[in-house]
Amino acid sequence: MNFRSLYRIHFSIVDVKEKMKETVKIGMLGCGVVGSGVLHLLNREHSGCLHRKNIGLQIARIAVRDLTKRREGIPRELLTDDPLAVIDDPGIDILIEVIGGIDPARHYLLRAIERRKSIVTANKALLSEYGDELFEAAHRCGVDLTFEASVAGGIPIIKSLREGLVANQIESLYGILNGTTNYVLTRMTDEGWDLHEALRAAQERGYAEADPTMDINGMDAAQKLIILTRIAYGGVFRTAEILREGIDRIAHQDIEYARELGYTIKLLAIAKRLDGNRVDVRVHPAMIPSGSVMADIKDEFNAIEVVGDAVGTQVFYGKGAGSLPTASAIISDLLDLAERHTRSASSRVSELFATDEGPELLSIDEIDVPYYLRFVVVDQPGVLAAIARILAAEQISISSVIQKGRSEVSSEGVPLVIMTHEAKERAMRHAIEQLNRLDVVKDRVQVIRVEELT
Amino acid sequence: MNFRSLYRIHFSIVDVKEKMKETVKIGMLGCGVVGSGVLHLLNREHSGCLHRKNIGLQIARIAVRDLTKRREGIPRELLTDDPLAVIDDPGIDILIEVIGGIDPARHYLLRAIERRKSIVTANKALLSEYGDELFEAAHRCGVDLTFEASVAGGIPIIKSLREGLVANQIESLYGILNGTTNYVLTRMTDEGWDLHEALRAAQERGYAEADPTMDINGMDAAQKLIILTRIAYGGVFRTAEILREGIDRIAHQDIEYARELGYTIKLLAIAKRLDGNRVDVRVHPAMIPSGSVMADIKDEFNAIEVVGDAVGTQVFYGKGAGSLPTASAIISDLLDLAERHTRSASSRVSELFATDEGPELLSIDEIDVPYYLRFVVVDQPGVLAAIARILAAEQISISSVIQKGRSEVSSEGVPLVIMTHEAKERAMRHAIEQLNRLDVVKDRVQVIRVEELT
Repeated sequence: MNFRSLYRIHFSIVDVKEKMKETVKIGMLGCGVVGSGVLHLLNREHSGCLHRKNIGLQIARIAVRDLTKRREGIPRELLTDDPLAVIDDPGIDILIEVIGGIDPARHYLLRAIERRKSIVTANKALLSEYGDELFEAAHRCGVDLTFEASVAGGIPIIKSLREGLVANQIESLYGILNGTTNYVLTRMTDEGWDLHEALRAAQERGYAEADPTMDINGMDAAQKLIILTRIAYGGVFRTAEILREGIDRIAHQDIEYARELGYTIKLLAIAKRLDGNRVDVRVHPAMIPSGSVMADIKDEFNAIEVVGDAVGTQVFYGKGAGSLPTASAIISDLLDLAERHTRSASSRVSELFATDEGPELLSIDEIDVPYYLRFVVVDQPGVLAAIARILAAEQISISSVIQKGRSEVSSEGVPLVIMTHEAKERAMRHAIEQLNRLDVVKDRVQVIRVEELT
Repeated sequence: MNFRSLYRIHFSIVDVKEKMKETVKIGMLGCGVVGSGVLHLLNREHSGCLHRKNIGLQIARIAVRDLTKRREGIPRELLTDDPLAVIDDPGIDILIEVIGGIDPARHYLLRAIERRKSIVTANKALLSEYGDELFEAAHRCGVDLTFEASVAGGIPIIKSLREGLVANQIESLYGILNGTTNYVLTRMTDEGWDLHEALRAAQERGYAEADPTMDINGMDAAQKLIILTRIAYGGVFRTAEILREGIDRIAHQDIEYARELGYTIKLLAIAKRLDGNRVDVRVHPAMIPSGSVMADIKDEFNAIEVVGDAVGTQVFYGKGAGSLPTASAIISDLLDLAERHTRSASSRVSELFATDEGPELLSIDEIDVPYYLRFVVVDQPGVLAAIARILAAEQISISSVIQKGRSEVSSEGVPLVIMTHEAKERAMRHAIEQLNRLDVVKDRVQVIRVEELT
């Protein structure tokens, strides 16, 4: 068999796989920041786990307000300015709603549910005020309604609470759910800026809307908290019923006093189980212990600390907003619904198979990291030169040296620490073998790899 | 209608709900620490989200080694010492495997799969070495095989990677996946203990096995990393193929030098995507930047930092082992499988309904937290007494007072900060109204609630 035929066979396998994929047709209402993120993630060639699934997700129709707007890479024939053309299309199985706000989204979704479409929405305002009506309609019509993207962007907190921690009674839930206010409070705390300076910076960086009222007054966090409370406790409450305070009155002095007292100020969304089937649900600036994980959540990041009676404390941390993080959550929901449309158990297991497309393991020899080397050496001139010569011969370059004074001399020798730049594992192994043979090097060289994380 | 009939109606609704629940029958192999955790969580009266699901999970048969052992609260008739009596029971839909180890678990699971049972396992050793064989068998027989409990205990990391982050290409994954070694390194770092002291303490606290070899040498973390790599990258590798180093050679001097250089030493499990469809997979002690989220993971806790191309950096943090955290993960898997057995979309939406069993919202008046109060007061004697009198009249007790020296006096007055013990919202509101009316209090009193977290 020559290379040509191998190539053909490879392609025909891919074709068969593609054909085996069941395709689910999707409509979308809205195509702004989040909607175009969804299209981007679905249309790129390789989307990690997604391409190993046996299910194809096809965007069949998109309703937009302005048909004349230039939209890079979106085929014109997918677009319509009539939302009903999407909602009423009998070929569409699942509807994504990313227009936001209460009206007309509420009526669109109710109509789509009546037409037996399952719904994926990122609409926290709608769910926090009209969740009951929508869930009831979905139940009655036998469709599903999912909303991972409505809380904490790309962090899979809804899935984790509903599915991952399903066996737990949730004792408490603390959320930093609004990136804008967390960015503002971080700048006020770390840089000493005042609220208005920090807010302007947030707007410049795109973390805050032109009108940040709903962020600053805690309403955005309250809507998300109402949704989380429903999942964690089955409690159906309205934002108007809970205690809500924003960050507008936080002064720089408060941040300073908090620091003196061992606290950090965060806009915290809180839901706690109390005795007698009661829950304490509120959003307000709170002083929380400095040094706690939640106090260390900085900038525009979100985090949720959940205490479950079985698992204890868990924290989920990540970006709570933005086009791609939110789109990531929407596609997670989409795939859940699509799998339910087509589900056979084996379609899930199949993604765990060995495939010829699997990645190659980097050979151990080729691992390329900075190193920490600790030596115990004889205290005499020329030692460092001897060591450096061996490293240089293996193309390993030194980034810093710590050589302690005489005070640390022991009978065995003096310590010497060398940090290197990235070096290949094989080169380092050769170097270490030679270094261990040097007379001036006592004891084996200690080697620890360095990881700068990302 | 009198109360008596209301009571009856309420109960009949509950009955109908219970009857509507479809029940899935479950067999279990093993009933040690994790197995008894599963029974505990399934049998208690209220399990949070779980009791709102339309699905009943019934443990029908349990195979144990020793039938004579006393097992509190487990009906004798559920137990057998013949694993095949569970595996071959045609009434059983799902099999939980918590015996651990490669043999005989491997043969039991293959036989159960042939008998068309879906599998839930916590067996990291088995999956990391024989995952291929098991997934292939499951695919062929059309059953599912889930394993959330095999990595990081109660943290829903498998679900988050497979489902929550499905739209992401995973750029890198850093895990602190072994609680024993993290506890040991934390004690060495924070207390200056040596490895043997720290290991003894871990054993006393039940974080380390009597034989901690697999923890210390990195094998436990490597097995978990192999499983995560399979999910994140589709890579099918063996522990024997990857670079693996344990923590046994880490000396106290290394921890000290690391600190000087701005690093913390952690046993890190690493999987990184490189160019050319290659992945860099390894487990070893690593110096990571102090102050990073991962460097702050202390004691027996686990954490996984995932960088996805859509969501950016996410961190999942929690307990990685123990009876109930691991059992929590097993029940999450169980419910996934059970839902697939019985699934109708509406069964999932129904749990989101308003029900009469929902909790009651704590009235805002009754919220009970410590407070920070900041005043600007006239600089004259008797001011503190006047304020304290008002707080005392509302039963609010003071925990500390910060009164600054003359240097901070401004034309408007001097600052005064009071921290209170827990006080009811209503009482505080009354107090604040009166405090704001005091002549000696300039400006409105600043009020911030304190949350000590859990």
